[in-house]
This record gives sequence, structure tokens and C-alpha cells, in this order.
Amino acid sequence: MSDIEREVHAVAERAGDAAAELAPLSRAVKDAALVAIADALVKRAGEITAANAEDVERARRDGTSPAMVDRLTLTPERIEAIADAVREIVELPDPVGESVRGGVLPNGLDLRQIRVPLGVIGIIYEGRPNVTVDAAALCLKSGNAALLRGSSSAYASNTAIVGVLRDALAGTGVPQDAVQMVPGRTRESSTALMRARGLVDVLIPRGGGSLIRAVVRDSTVPVIETGEGLCHVYVDADADLAKAVAIATNAKAQRCSVCNSAETLLVHEAVADAFLPRVLDALGGAGVTVHGDRRVLEAAAAHGAGADVVEATEEDWATEYLSMDLAVRVVPTIDEAIAHIRRYSTRHTEAIVTDSLKASRYFVSRVDSAAVMVNASTRFTDGGEFGFGAEIGISTQKLHARGPMGLTEMTSTKYVVTGDGHLK
Amino acid sequence: MSDIEREVHAVAERAGDAAAELAPLSRAVKDAALVAIADALVKRAGEITAANAEDVERARRDGTSPAMVDRLTLTPERIEAIADAVREIVELPDPVGESVRGGVLPNGLDLRQIRVPLGVIGIIYEGRPNVTVDAAALCLKSGNAALLRGSSSAYASNTAIVGVLRDALAGTGVPQDAVQMVPGRTRESSTALMRARGLVDVLIPRGGGSLIRAVVRDSTVPVIETGEGLCHVYVDADADLAKAVAIATNAKAQRCSVCNSAETLLVHEAVADAFLPRVLDALGGAGVTVHGDRRVLEAAAAHGAGADVVEATEEDWATEYLSMDLAVRVVPTIDEAIAHIRRYSTRHTEAIVTDSLKASRYFVSRVDSAAVMVNASTRFTDGGEFGFGAEIGISTQKLHARGPMGLTEMTSTKYVVTGDGHLK
Repeated sequence: MSDIEREVHAVAERAGDAAAELAPLSRAVKDAALVAIADALVKRAGEITAANAEDVERARRDGTSPAMVDRLTLTPERIEAIADAVREIVELPDPVGESVRGGVLPNGLDLRQIRVPLGVIGIIYEGRPNVTVDAAALCLKSGNAALLRGSSSAYASNTAIVGVLRDALAGTGVPQDAVQMVPGRTRESSTALMRARGLVDVLIPRGGGSLIRAVVRDSTVPVIETGEGLCHVYVDADADLAKAVAIATNAKAQRCSVCNSAETLLVHEAVADAFLPRVLDALGGAGVTVHGDRRVLEAAAAHGAGADVVEATEEDWATEYLSMDLAVRVVPTIDEAIAHIRRYSTRHTEAIVTDSLKASRYFVSRVDSAAVMVNASTRFTDGGEFGFGAEIGISTQKLHARGPMGLTEMTSTKYVVTGDGHLK
Repeated sequence: MSDIEREVHAVAERAGDAAAELAPLSRAVKDAALVAIADALVKRAGEITAANAEDVERARRDGTSPAMVDRLTLTPERIEAIADAVREIVELPDPVGESVRGGVLPNGLDLRQIRVPLGVIGIIYEGRPNVTVDAAALCLKSGNAALLRGSSSAYASNTAIVGVLRDALAGTGVPQDAVQMVPGRTRESSTALMRARGLVDVLIPRGGGSLIRAVVRDSTVPVIETGEGLCHVYVDADADLAKAVAIATNAKAQRCSVCNSAETLLVHEAVADAFLPRVLDALGGAGVTVHGDRRVLEAAAAHGAGADVVEATEEDWATEYLSMDLAVRVVPTIDEAIAHIRRYSTRHTEAIVTDSLKASRYFVSRVDSAAVMVNASTRFTDGGEFGFGAEIGISTQKLHARGPMGLTEMTSTKYVVTGDGHLK
């Protein structure tokens, strides 16, 4: 075992001890700790921005894009907003201890299934230092210890933030080791985290597709895959075309850089002639470049395209653009739309636009994604929109949690069985 | 990719296609298929016993123990019982389509979280060919395709059984490829199954600890760990000693070869003098060998031991005996009992015997196991006892499912969001 592996294991073991102390704590104790954290962030904003300035300067020196530098930058106002987000988590109900099911068995045993924390949650994330606070606060509220592994580009910021959080925990009932940074900033230290099976209960990567795939590939700790979204909008033969135009445009263009934006539009051929000119105009007006199949190219040529239209290749169907690009294909049947989705989707969110109850039931029961929208934009797949208050990520896998992961999804359960000397 | 990998992948792909067809099927269709399976098993019992005779003969020739040969052996009566178990699964409610939560969001979107099948479930199991039918039936009822990988010792039996199951599915609405054997009987074929990430949604190993650890170690497909049970009974300072004697003896001796039997008894020192002689007598009467710490040895010497008592070593605390052996230790405090459990338990089931409400609350909130018993035998952790009707295994992990896994635990969920042209 290398030095860094030993260090990471030691940190994970302390996290395990902290998790054991955290699990039985009441909501009041955890909320008081979160309030202390929010207060400390505001009070010590100066230290945090000073550390952040080092990261920002290095990023500029390294030629990082202005957009990325902006994501990295912390200001007193941004720190205030981060503290407010913590205060919002204080207001959320505590899932721990909730009774999931229960009753009295025929033999008189009292059976309850109750929510308990998962234990130690490792978070591997990119860029923005606000994730450090957000992830730590969600972990604490749900009774879990947080092991944080941010990107090396935010190392100074994250170190300062975690210092503030840990100081704030002193004197609350929450152990300081409930929030720890994974030591080291090399790939070796994140690999050590990924291999700490038995010490870390779950790893949640937050970031782009390549980060997520690397964690899934290299980890022996169970991983919850989040966030890759190659989302589809399908316009059915029975769609209200005005709504279809609005939903397709909203799903792509309202904010194109996020995982729940649409990347491919599928159009039933029965409405293609009527729909394509209208949607091309709307997409063009929003600044979207269309990657279309032959039918789409023909419609654009006949109509005089309202949008930039280029020919789609096989690669387009498989691409999560996260940009103002949209692949558009005409399909002969709803079954072909479903087959296309099954082949290319990352199973995050798909939408159908239709006025047919039969078509909506058919689509909903056969499309196997975390969220299926009927006559609504894909952009609604979000913990805040769903009423969960906050989310640690959007799971695109089927085990444990699927879709937006709120506090409830950061828990496990245990059975408590109470008897009076019951024997089998 | 080797030939066997290609074959396993082809089988898994067909399972995926079958799973897509299975997902939207109604309970009536799935139940009719299960009835057809039960009928076919009884009708073609002769073929199955003939194939089983090959496995049994080879096992005898290879010097397999009589107990193992008995586990392997199928008779017409046993096949009848296996078919009856399928008919019991017919009677269970179908979890698919169940609404887990739902409501109308402030913006008028209708949000429902509904249960859906996991997809393709791989089962890797040892010994008994009845698991082949049991696992397939539970998978079908919960809308999942089953990929079965039994032990090579039951290869002929399993091949015959799967043939009968697939024939029975012809003409029902359930696709035949919903039940398939993993081709090949070498380690290479089970490794190929474990590496089929993306094609297989989850692997559930059923068998002994070494099988489970091998699957967890080698698999890139998500695994649900089942069945290892190093279970503890803790006799508190405030225990009713008569109940404590009965529970400790029942937990160890009622059936010692199963995962929910107790392996270690922890005794609070305040009751050690009164309790140890009584429990040693009872354990001795049941034929249990006690592996005791110094205090236990002293009590046995002073009292004239009612049981065979040998000195416990460090290894005893970490051993899942699955035999008529029990490790017994005296602890100074409830905290030391909890610390001992945290160190050695496989987090399956632990029990406390106490009349103190405070002690029971303390123990329940701090012991992090799938099931925590209060004044009841550890032997009650079981899907049948819990009222789930049938179980595919007992999960000892925290992600996705914990404790006995019934049909509900063989599902995922998806969000269905219905609007009327909703835009963000």
C-alpha cells in the first residue's frame, strides 16, 4: 500500500467512525450544525475568497476559458448564496428514522422498516467549489459522513471551505470528521478513494460524462451514475403541433448546457410535413443548428430553412451535444421512435408530445428512462422542480436511486423487529 | 473477445430484448405464464428426474458428501413442491406499476413515481436445482428477464429444467428468452456474465461466502450481496434471563446451517454470573459447543459446564460457523457490545434481549445491520416470516435493497410526468 493509499484509508476510517456517531443524531442537532456552517461561511468569506483567488489566478495563467474561470470564481455574494442554500437544506425534512413500512406480523412480532443513513459517501466532482458545501450539507442532513474529492483546479478554495466547515462543527453535536477532504490532489488519491471498498459505502461522481465513466470503470466501491443526459423529444402522429414546437424548442434551447436538455427530436412521419417547417423556424429563431436526416433536409430545402440545417450522421444520434445543436429524425412509427430511444438514450429523460391517451400509455410503459414526460419539456427533470428541495445529482442507473436524488435517496433502510421472547 | 464471451453477450442481448417486451406486460399475462410453468414441471417431472440422475451419479462418483448429494437430488415429490412454490408466487401481488409517490406540482404537472422492472437479472448460484425455478419465477413475476448460472454439478438438471420452462412459455405472452441459462459450465462463462456491464442490470449471487466474495470482486455489473450472516445476540443488563436463554439457544440451534442463525453471544457482565450457567446448560442440552472468553471459561469451571466449552481465539469472533458452535463473550457495557458488533458483524441480523426501553432504543439506533431484533430470535430475518411471500435472497449491503429481498426489491422506479404543454 502506498503512502497516499494509507492516508486515504485513514481518512475513510475516521469518516466511518464519524458516520457511526452521526447515525443516531436527531434532526435538531444536525440542523444546528448546518446553521453553524452557514453562519461561518458568511463570517469567514474573506478567507475563502482569498484562497479562491489563488485558484483563479492559476487557472488564468493556465489559459483556462473565461467561462470556466467564472464557474471557479467565488465572490462574497456567491458565498452568501451558498450559505443560503445550506439554510434551505435546514428547512427540509430529515429522512432518517422515517418508517417506510411496518405492521404486526401474524405471530405478534412488530415489524418496521425505517430509513437510516448510507454511512460514508464519497463525492468526486469537477469545477465549482460550491459543490463542496452543497454535498457536505446534504450528506450531514441525511446523517452521512462526506468524503470530498474536488478537482485540483479548486484545491485551495476547497481546502479553505472544508476548514471553515470543520471549524463550524466544533461544539455542535456533529463530529468534525463527518466532513473531510480526500488528501492529495493527484489521480492516485482519487483512485485510492475508488478502491476503498468496505470503508466507503457509495461514490457519487458529479461532473461530465468522461469523469462519470472513469469512476464507474475504476471503482470497486458501489457507484451511483449521475447526470449523462442524451434526452429525446418524440412528436407523435396525434401531437398538438403548437405545443410540440414549444416543447421541442424549450427542451433544447432554454438552457442547452445541462443534462436534462434535449439532444434529439424524433418526428412521426404523419405530421412531418406540417411540423418540420414550423419547428425549423422556431429552432432557427432560438439559434439552434439542426442536424437532420434526409426528410428534414428535404423539408428545409422545400420550405426555405428557418434554421441552419446540416446532414446528420450516425454519430449525431449518439452525441450529448450540451450546445445549441439538435439532431432531428423522422420516424415511420411510434415503435421506431421507441427503438431509436432504446438504442441511443442514456435513460435520463424522454418526452412524448401527443393528445392520444393510447400513444402516451404505450410510450410511457415502453420507454425505460428515469423520467418520461408527457406533453412537458425534458427540462423539468430536476430535484427542485420535483419538490425534493435539493439534489445531490440525477441518477441514470436503475439500482438504488433513479432520477433526481434528494435526501431520501441518500439513505438506506433497516428492519427493526420487536417481540416478547419470540422463538422460531 | 473469446467465443464464450461472444455467446454470453448474445444471450444477454436476447435477455435485454425479452426484458423490453416483459416490462409492459400485465399481471394476468405473467401469472398465466407462471401457471403454465408449474403445470409443465409436474407433467415433465420424468424428464427432469432422468437428467438429475446424471448429476447425482456423477456427484456420487466424485465422492460428494451424502448431504450434498441429497441437496442435489430431485424426486417427483420435490418437483411437485417446486411447482407449488411457483403457484404461491402466482398469488403474490405484482409490484410493477405500483405508484410509490405522486401528486400535482405547483405548476400543475402531474408527477408519479412508479415501479418498473430492473431489466436483466443474472443469478449465480450453487447446488440445489430448485433455485433455477424459484429465481426464474420471481424474475418473471417482477417483469425481469433471468440469466441463470447454476453450478456445474447441477448442469444436466438445470438444462432440463430451463428447457421445460422455456417450452412452457411458448404460446404465453411472455417471451421465451425471458428465461435463459448462461452458456458453458466453465469459470470463463461466469466471468463473462460478471463483466457484461450494460447488458446485465444486476447480479445476485446465491450461495456461500466464498461465492459471494468472488462475484463482488470480479464483477463490473452491479452486485447485490446476499446471505453472509455473522449474527450476534446481546444479552443486556436488564434482560429477562429466561427469555435470553431461550432466544440465544433458538438463534443458534434451531437450524444452525442458515445465514440468520447466531454465531456470537455477547453478555453484559452485570448478568454474567446469573446468566452464563443457565445458558451453558441450555446450549449443552441442544448440542452446542461454546467458544468462550476467560469469563465464560471461569463460569463453566465454577458451575460444572453444561456445554462443551473451549477457549475462544480472535478468529472465533470473525467466524460464521454455520455449525453447532457459538462464540460467547462477556462485555462490560452496551457500548462495548455495539463496538464488538461493528467490528465483526456482516451486518445481517443482530438481536438485543432487554426489558429496558432505553437500552433497546440505544441498541436499535446504533447497530447498523439489515435487521435488528429486540427480544426475538435472529432466525426471524426471512422474506416468508416478514410477509413478503418469497425472497430471492437476503441483502447485507446498503444500496438498493437491504434485508430480505422480495418482489418489490427486484424493481426500480421511474418518474412519469404529465403536463399540458408545460415549458420551463
